[in-house]
Amino acid sequence: MRVSIREVGPRDGLQNEDPVPTAAKVELIDALSGTGVGRIEAVSFVHPKAIPQMADADEVWAKVTRNPAVRYSALVPNVRGAQRAIAAGFTEVEVVISASDTHNRRNINRSTDESLAELPELIETLHAGDATAELIIATSFGCPYEGDIDPARVASIVDKAVGMGVDRVAFGDTTGMATPRRVRDVLDRVTREKPLLCHFHNTRGTGLANILTAVDLGVTEFDASVGGLGGCPYAPGATGNVATEEVVHMLHDMGYETGIDLDRLVEVAELAQRIVGRELPSGVLRAGPRYRTIA
Amino acid sequence: MRVSIREVGPRDGLQNEDPVPTAAKVELIDALSGTGVGRIEAVSFVHPKAIPQMADADEVWAKVTRNPAVRYSALVPNVRGAQRAIAAGFTEVEVVISASDTHNRRNINRSTDESLAELPELIETLHAGDATAELIIATSFGCPYEGDIDPARVASIVDKAVGMGVDRVAFGDTTGMATPRRVRDVLDRVTREKPLLCHFHNTRGTGLANILTAVDLGVTEFDASVGGLGGCPYAPGATGNVATEEVVHMLHDMGYETGIDLDRLVEVAELAQRIVGRELPSGVLRAGPRYRTIA
Repeated sequence: MRVSIREVGPRDGLQNEDPVPTAAKVELIDALSGTGVGRIEAVSFVHPKAIPQMADADEVWAKVTRNPAVRYSALVPNVRGAQRAIAAGFTEVEVVISASDTHNRRNINRSTDESLAELPELIETLHAGDATAELIIATSFGCPYEGDIDPARVASIVDKAVGMGVDRVAFGDTTGMATPRRVRDVLDRVTREKPLLCHFHNTRGTGLANILTAVDLGVTEFDASVGGLGGCPYAPGATGNVATEEVVHMLHDMGYETGIDLDRLVEVAELAQRIVGRELPSGVLRAGPRYRTIA
Repeated sequence: MRVSIREVGPRDGLQNEDPVPTAAKVELIDALSGTGVGRIEAVSFVHPKAIPQMADADEVWAKVTRNPAVRYSALVPNVRGAQRAIAAGFTEVEVVISASDTHNRRNINRSTDESLAELPELIETLHAGDATAELIIATSFGCPYEGDIDPARVASIVDKAVGMGVDRVAFGDTTGMATPRRVRDVLDRVTREKPLLCHFHNTRGTGLANILTAVDLGVTEFDASVGGLGGCPYAPGATGNVATEEVVHMLHDMGYETGIDLDRLVEVAELAQRIVGRELPSGVLRAGPRYRTIA
């Protein structure tokens, strides 16, 4: 069976690291484009004061060597960002709304419903610019402020967004609060009318267990970050996104196909580690894939 | 449902760390005894030249405050070690034989069959001393030298050991090569005549995914190491045993009972981190349990 991985290291990863030079971002994206990965979230078009790590998004994207076999995407916070993404030539765009009111307010000073009310204009802008719109529902499996999030609330947000014409839906495990039980609770509840993607963080070690659960429940699209780039803004020093090579390593051994060359991916994880200048948390980066035996 | 955790930090964990003082080992075991954990592998009776970290096993055990609610056990390599364990008063003892011939030879200069031939005398010694004998089958899910291990070979070792009178069987994921697929391959194959336990390392991030798979297949006993103490002797800097608090955190959230107080366990993980003086790899130690919300 085929599983589609979207590499989010250049965006969600680097957004949570100390800023790195534009050239290093371009080098990372180009290296990832050569691994066989089918999708890369390359940049986000956010206000540079909010996220200085992404201030050079236009320049990065202009310098990237686009591989026609790769679907590149950008994350945007609002209509202004959507316009920038379209102007830059993106045809796939992600927007984030948090299932947790408190989390959404702390991030963008709006309730979840207020953000949802702005979604139709955003979708319309993207569709008018020939781009698809994906809604990422942050804190789908728990909120660092509110704790548990009612899966019915997540399901209701999916219904509303699908009704508004969103093309895809992603469930964000923003601070790594998902466990197999929470994954099941959400996935059992939500409509499958549009393609679903899961975005897990490995903050509490459950990343691959959650992916295993989601795969068992029929989800075939996952975000992951090379080397486990990124961190958790709520717990300094904690792990962020699941590491792409750990995900690929497990799925390949289980017989799933991703199209990714794992050995090349591990080399890119080494590059990512050099770029950020700190030891990344990926076990497959450190120990190598299980098939590398001692001579 | 009930899951039984055996805490192996004081043995498998500390055996793979720089040596720590006797008093620190005693403090760690005593602290673990107060967490509600039902079983602790306290020491190993091995030759001090082979494993200097365990040279003070008798002294550690003599100084431990034994909690009557805890089952303590010791690991031994041979009949001599078994006699020492019995003399020290242990009533539960583990022995290790590797499913991989190459791994067994590199460790103890014997083939797997040669080690199995010595098992009856070891079991007899233990039973005569009123101790139970558990066989831990190392490299059950893969060998760092040979690569994949045929599950039929693991099943055959289980059959032989059960025939010899062993009381329990454990599957050791010695270098973290297990994936959910390998766990299923082994567990689908082996007899359930005796209680089975799984001992996973988190070297490549699959630790909790493997536990999830094993639980789904009816296994209810797991080894884990507080804080993720220990490492992988074959990959310097790599992660070793699954962290007890990560296991407990996931299982509790899924509705399983372990009898362990997770908050107290996290405190002991902090103690373990202070004892070894390095940052331990446990995500739950770093980020806290998912139910600790930001005020």
